[in-house]
Amino acid sequence: MQFKLSKDILEQISKAIENGNDGFILSHLKDLHAADIAEIMHELSEDEGKYIFRLLESEKAADTLLELDEDVREDLLESLTTKEIAAHLNEMESDDAADVVGELPEEKKREVISQIEDKTQVSDIEKLLIYEEGTAGAIMASELISVNENWTVERCIVEMRKQAQEIEHVYNIYVVNDENILIGVLSLKTLLFATPKTQIKELVNANIRFVYAHQTQEEAARLMEKYDLVAMPVVDENKKLLGRITIDDVVDVIKEEAEKDYQMASGLSEKVESTDSIWVISRARLPWLLVAMIGGIFASRVIGIFEGEIQIHPEMAFFIPLVAAMGGNVGIQSAAIVVQQLARQGIELNGIIPKLFKELIVGLVNGLICSGIILSYNLLFSDSVNLSLTVSIALLTVIIFAAVFGTFVPLALNKYKIDPALATGPFITTTNDILGALIYFTVGRILYSAF
Amino acid sequence: MQFKLSKDILEQISKAIENGNDGFILSHLKDLHAADIAEIMHELSEDEGKYIFRLLESEKAADTLLELDEDVREDLLESLTTKEIAAHLNEMESDDAADVVGELPEEKKREVISQIEDKTQVSDIEKLLIYEEGTAGAIMASELISVNENWTVERCIVEMRKQAQEIEHVYNIYVVNDENILIGVLSLKTLLFATPKTQIKELVNANIRFVYAHQTQEEAARLMEKYDLVAMPVVDENKKLLGRITIDDVVDVIKEEAEKDYQMASGLSEKVESTDSIWVISRARLPWLLVAMIGGIFASRVIGIFEGEIQIHPEMAFFIPLVAAMGGNVGIQSAAIVVQQLARQGIELNGIIPKLFKELIVGLVNGLICSGIILSYNLLFSDSVNLSLTVSIALLTVIIFAAVFGTFVPLALNKYKIDPALATGPFITTTNDILGALIYFTVGRILYSAF
Repeated sequence: MQFKLSKDILEQISKAIENGNDGFILSHLKDLHAADIAEIMHELSEDEGKYIFRLLESEKAADTLLELDEDVREDLLESLTTKEIAAHLNEMESDDAADVVGELPEEKKREVISQIEDKTQVSDIEKLLIYEEGTAGAIMASELISVNENWTVERCIVEMRKQAQEIEHVYNIYVVNDENILIGVLSLKTLLFATPKTQIKELVNANIRFVYAHQTQEEAARLMEKYDLVAMPVVDENKKLLGRITIDDVVDVIKEEAEKDYQMASGLSEKVESTDSIWVISRARLPWLLVAMIGGIFASRVIGIFEGEIQIHPEMAFFIPLVAAMGGNVGIQSAAIVVQQLARQGIELNGIIPKLFKELIVGLVNGLICSGIILSYNLLFSDSVNLSLTVSIALLTVIIFAAVFGTFVPLALNKYKIDPALATGPFITTTNDILGALIYFTVGRILYSAF
Repeated sequence: MQFKLSKDILEQISKAIENGNDGFILSHLKDLHAADIAEIMHELSEDEGKYIFRLLESEKAADTLLELDEDVREDLLESLTTKEIAAHLNEMESDDAADVVGELPEEKKREVISQIEDKTQVSDIEKLLIYEEGTAGAIMASELISVNENWTVERCIVEMRKQAQEIEHVYNIYVVNDENILIGVLSLKTLLFATPKTQIKELVNANIRFVYAHQTQEEAARLMEKYDLVAMPVVDENKKLLGRITIDDVVDVIKEEAEKDYQMASGLSEKVESTDSIWVISRARLPWLLVAMIGGIFASRVIGIFEGEIQIHPEMAFFIPLVAAMGGNVGIQSAAIVVQQLARQGIELNGIIPKLFKELIVGLVNGLICSGIILSYNLLFSDSVNLSLTVSIALLTVIIFAAVFGTFVPLALNKYKIDPALATGPFITTTNDILGALIYFTVGRILYSAF
């Protein structure tokens, strides 16, 4: 079954809402996945969305709430009573519930939590809220299946039946000792094929990968990705089992990371979507534009130094955009390669110097090719040999400089624990604009005064 | 257990290789995951890597082969005989084996396949090789557990025992009818808790999401991500069960997609890593640099039209970088928002016109703020009211234009099934450079001649 959102469906639902035809809406939503219902709600007006949300039975409603975009969910939660919200939280897995609580305004949090019926859920949520955002602990769920190493397969299945009720997906069974310290892992497959009297101890796979609750979510994602895991246990500093992280949360982390880097490279200072308000979109774009503008003002000052030359040789101004654009592009390319490498490895084993040297050579190769082409062009189409030489020499210098600089900045930022992706945005283009102009006109001044 | 690659380990291994101390190496690698061994091999020299690879027992060797970067794997495969490669392929899941075969040179492919011992594996690989790269069929594996709806739980477990041997992770059990047509899904959890005589028919969950083999891998990834699936069945046009896609493959697709967009935005024409050769890195960067250079030449032509003005008012040249940079940045921001939106949704429900209108307003907001600031700056620090007005009016115009243009281009590309991310690279900055210069000097010409 594949669901496809269409204008038709949306119009039919809108009309049904208008006419209060709940039967039609319910028959339409009945077989849909919560993610599909969320998709429909995103396209409807706020009031229409609320209308269909209220029609959903409790479990579907809770699932749908989780699938909504954060801003839509925020609006929806505002219109619900604390009691209603508590009822939805009751239906969720603890990590999702904790996430939703985290999004609530401070004054509402306590009230909502106190109204959740299931007290295990309350204590799970409270435990999870302790972990700082961005840590493995903050994205783990408390629901998992753990069995004692001393149990038999038979007992294990009985105990699991109790534990498994509240868990949607059982990927692995975690094996602990009497102190709840993680010993190893057991697959459902192993259990399914084992004889009832076997001790868990004999079946357990001790070669297990785990993550500490205080490690970052990016480290957790990297481990799960590297080892192709669908679930990974989270432990405290004594290796006591706290919870598990599942692959769906990690996919979100991976996507967020990638989107964040892309966003930074594109000069957006916060996450925006084209459906956000004009003010939110404008605000996300303004900071880097201001940086670029300050850079532009500096560049104008630098060019101002050469006002005399421009008056005598106005043709020098023609190639300002070319030199600036090439410097900017080369810088961004270099920075992007470093940022992707850092994102992939997370570590930097070899020194910075060999990397910079390599970039120097790459810059030299690209610089020679580009400046060669522009030299031929200028010698053919412009009458000034001085200008031709100036543009080519400046271009070569700017490209080499930009390549090295674009490599150095993200590596340096990373060393000081600043997000290296900062270097890929307007910062690097702006710096290259200023230095490019300086190099270009300095070369020009020397050449024009020499010949 | 957490593995951390260190210089120490690498040096110890290098020394052990030099001294032929295989015992030390093996004791070191014994408990490591294939992904860790691959990480070590990436840091060693080619010959050292081959040395430790030959020490691995067959299953670990096959796993390690899959974890290697493509270029390292290519080198390694070249040094192996077709018989050795066939032996490794025998150990792999069919989709991985088909991927490796796909990377072999044409003349080697037949020979390797003919030497694979397990004939089911051979026919699986051959079936998978039919699917075009980039389709769901090409990333699916043939290994899965399927049971007939008419079986009992008891029979099911017996049959599964046979099928499950060659499968590393059993996530779900697919239920088919006598024609091998997909009917639904069964979780291991359900099976574990069911009574032996129950018919599968009574347990099956018919609400199943699947993908057709001919759909793109991006569509498969989007579905699995949307519905939080760890495995999804792949069917042919008659809904006959062909294979399954697992989450680890999808994580790769998601990462690749995100990296590709980022790469395009950064002006890289192919996937490169900082460990690639200087020539590969230079080549990946050259195409967009040439585009930027041609753009720069056009811009020089445009500015050339205004040579007379520059000679009289050389101060006009000062703000060329500012106007160009702002146009470029705004264009990239706008395009990035659209590209991310398209990547997320895959569909475009609403028309283009409202989007462009919204961008117009965003451009107006940012444009007014930026040109207001630059106007104040210029009135304070420059003596020329004409220049101040020229820069501000041009800046406002360029920002609004770039915002609308940056939104329009990716939408238009997407409409004609061209990757919209093309619009985020140097293409859009270059176009904005040229048009920015034209707008700036035209405004200047009008103002200077009017006053």
